[in-house]
Amino acid sequence: MLASTRRIALRPVLRSAALTRTLGTASIFKNEPAKPSVRTSLPGPKSKDAIQKLDTVFDTRSINMLVDYKKCNGNYIVDHDDNVLLDAFAQIASIPLGYNNPVLAEIASSQDMVGAIINRPAIGNFPSSEWADTLEAGLLKAAPKGMSQVFTSMTGSDANETAYKAAFIWRRSQERGAADFTEEEISSSMANQAPGSPNYSILSFKGGFHGRLFGSLSTTRSKPIHKLDIPAFDWPAAPFPQLKYPLEANAAANAAEEQRCLAETERLIKEFHNPVAAVIVEPIQSEGGDNHASPAFFKGLREITKRHNVMFIVDEVQTGVGATGKFWAHEHWDLPEAPDMVTFSKKAQAAGFYYRDSALRPNKPYRQFNTWMGDPVRAILFRGIHDEVQRHGLVEKTAQVGNYLFGKLEKLAEQFPNEISNLRGKGQGTFIAWDSPRRDEVIRLAKQSGLNIGGSGERSIRLRPMLIFEERHADILVDILSSVLKK
Amino acid sequence: MLASTRRIALRPVLRSAALTRTLGTASIFKNEPAKPSVRTSLPGPKSKDAIQKLDTVFDTRSINMLVDYKKCNGNYIVDHDDNVLLDAFAQIASIPLGYNNPVLAEIASSQDMVGAIINRPAIGNFPSSEWADTLEAGLLKAAPKGMSQVFTSMTGSDANETAYKAAFIWRRSQERGAADFTEEEISSSMANQAPGSPNYSILSFKGGFHGRLFGSLSTTRSKPIHKLDIPAFDWPAAPFPQLKYPLEANAAANAAEEQRCLAETERLIKEFHNPVAAVIVEPIQSEGGDNHASPAFFKGLREITKRHNVMFIVDEVQTGVGATGKFWAHEHWDLPEAPDMVTFSKKAQAAGFYYRDSALRPNKPYRQFNTWMGDPVRAILFRGIHDEVQRHGLVEKTAQVGNYLFGKLEKLAEQFPNEISNLRGKGQGTFIAWDSPRRDEVIRLAKQSGLNIGGSGERSIRLRPMLIFEERHADILVDILSSVLKK
Repeated sequence: MLASTRRIALRPVLRSAALTRTLGTASIFKNEPAKPSVRTSLPGPKSKDAIQKLDTVFDTRSINMLVDYKKCNGNYIVDHDDNVLLDAFAQIASIPLGYNNPVLAEIASSQDMVGAIINRPAIGNFPSSEWADTLEAGLLKAAPKGMSQVFTSMTGSDANETAYKAAFIWRRSQERGAADFTEEEISSSMANQAPGSPNYSILSFKGGFHGRLFGSLSTTRSKPIHKLDIPAFDWPAAPFPQLKYPLEANAAANAAEEQRCLAETERLIKEFHNPVAAVIVEPIQSEGGDNHASPAFFKGLREITKRHNVMFIVDEVQTGVGATGKFWAHEHWDLPEAPDMVTFSKKAQAAGFYYRDSALRPNKPYRQFNTWMGDPVRAILFRGIHDEVQRHGLVEKTAQVGNYLFGKLEKLAEQFPNEISNLRGKGQGTFIAWDSPRRDEVIRLAKQSGLNIGGSGERSIRLRPMLIFEERHADILVDILSSVLKK
Repeated sequence: MLASTRRIALRPVLRSAALTRTLGTASIFKNEPAKPSVRTSLPGPKSKDAIQKLDTVFDTRSINMLVDYKKCNGNYIVDHDDNVLLDAFAQIASIPLGYNNPVLAEIASSQDMVGAIINRPAIGNFPSSEWADTLEAGLLKAAPKGMSQVFTSMTGSDANETAYKAAFIWRRSQERGAADFTEEEISSSMANQAPGSPNYSILSFKGGFHGRLFGSLSTTRSKPIHKLDIPAFDWPAAPFPQLKYPLEANAAANAAEEQRCLAETERLIKEFHNPVAAVIVEPIQSEGGDNHASPAFFKGLREITKRHNVMFIVDEVQTGVGATGKFWAHEHWDLPEAPDMVTFSKKAQAAGFYYRDSALRPNKPYRQFNTWMGDPVRAILFRGIHDEVQRHGLVEKTAQVGNYLFGKLEKLAEQFPNEISNLRGKGQGTFIAWDSPRRDEVIRLAKQSGLNIGGSGERSIRLRPMLIFEERHADILVDILSSVLKK
């Protein structure tokens, strides 16, 4: 009876779009806690025992919190000792619409979803007769401007790697023209040697993070611990602008810095010994410490890549799906021409890359192929996420809440100038960060006070709340931070 | 009401383990078709139209069939024109227990599953309090002998790549001993250069397939179309034995061939210019054409890798989960000591690698880490798959059905010696293949007659039925093949 009762109970929510838009998401998360409540030291005694048990089969050294997901609600995460925390980290920026979102629960228990789980197709060979509709009502509806195609994959890492493969295939196909593969290409490719496996490269930026498999890790330049002991391709890294804050007071120096980085990027494209097939960049370098650059910088990248006939890939794995106050962060740049590819994952729950037109499809089948080619479970879920984002106007709302939050943090930074420096993300929704000389301690104390936030880079604190984060949550967040800094 | 009604209706099935074991899986798939029924030429008119529509957003050149999954049942796949085919390819060997399996449908609509879909955790940081139980009741219960640990990932490709990373980290950690990373290692790793990113390698075998991302593709040696135009690491490929059939008549030549390949493998481990950290091998080279080797060959690999302190990775992505008549195909070898890692995906639905003990955990946290670190949806599903395999004795059953099918195919091969050569997979469950001079035509005609089978390598036909494939299905398969060959 449970499932059907719940389904009936949800119908009023599904039908009250106008109402919820007015009332905010409070009408969806009726049982969301009013505030955090931490009753034990963290981790609590039950968690400690359970983590010890888990450690016999699973490396637990990176555990932040053992979570009782059944009890989580909306913006609040509940640990194994029933401690309730406001979650502004959201599974490393990957939960879009709150814990136990009832509308997503409805979708997750639908017959479509059950079918997608138990009859998982090899999409490239045996797509379902609904696959076109699923894409068109979901992933393609959300496609960035100028992009009509999507290649689905499973994670941010393989989204980027399949985009790199598309770039390499495209590059060689341009050179080869209408000719078929040569015998030498065919035989050398099987020996992992040029010309069949050419020594081409992907240019990325210092401080960038694009994943941790072998191709993606070769473009990741955030932290040594990600890269040590792992073989890597000899690919180039350009400098990413190191902006000075506040931006208004440093406009000339920052513009010069961006020009320097653009010039070095162009030099590498022209001169690097392994020819550059694509440039990949994050709209905001996220793991690397929330490093921003101006729209002018990204417009410059678009120009340079176009001039040198190099693919321009925008990695929206962390920035995509609304958190910056645009559905895709690169909308902030107002590019005259779309990027060639845009990769996504995390809050999309689905993963893959968008591309501009079918010219990027390889010249033969089976060149971009694997068994599953994505995951209908997540394509269906994405469709529901996108519908909810539109229905509640959550992108615009996140822009507003972000402005509100940023304003309060600016005041806090004036109050504690040594503790909050380089506050950044103004006008970028809730995608906000700052530098903190005692970063790890601040994060630890905030957590003990009921606020879950994350670090990035060497000394940054990053906020990554969900799209249902509202002004009342921002107030709680700032209150906790303020009390922590007062200590 | 639908979901709860279905749930009640299923209870008798769930409680009748002894009965279903006697009756076979017919009691589960009550509505499984009695035989194939193809009413249109393939693809039919409805499929053609729909594929044309899909092609505007999705590369359809590799499509085999547009499938109406709601209508599929057990061993039968139903296309968009209501053609019903016996499916002995099973989504490239990745459906374990039949389409619309009611027990898996029950699991897929459970509250646990709904929670896993809508509250997807970053498992490395925020595992659920049930994660240890989920692993222990599922993936770890199915662990190969001698293996106590599992690292979960998302696909066969990233299962292999994370295993490679574990091997590289282990290798360098052995050399480094208790010392910390040097400054030179740290700075060079950020530039993708040795010593921080060492020029180590993974040895694979010619004809092997291990995935299509950049690290896994560097070990894949099956077909040029997988590799052309994609940069690759300079890693070694050893020859895989080319056995002569029938095995009994060629025992001495085959033993000599295996010794030759072992000797060359050992030479490469000792002499290849990029030091070998691990050897990876499939128990049966599947994409590469169903190439087999004897247990003696694999025992030899275990010995050589141990002698040279190199990791021995067995890729069970396609062979695992019962199809060869053992749950893991490498059980056929009776190794004196377990492999160091075993990778899995496909029929497991979950993916990842097993490893021998916690000594393979990196010396520091965050060295093997990513946002999702696997997928609880598939870990829960795997638990159900494994329970069902055990409850119905499907591994043993697949061994029996495989013997039955192989016997019938041997007779067919006697009848059509020019059409079926090198029949292989005897005693390997339903994991059967043969060479066919008109392979693509045979596959096409079989499909038009209601049998879906796949190709592999240059000229092989491979059978990859599900674990619920029974003697009556084998009869239909052989009847169709026989009628096709008579044409």
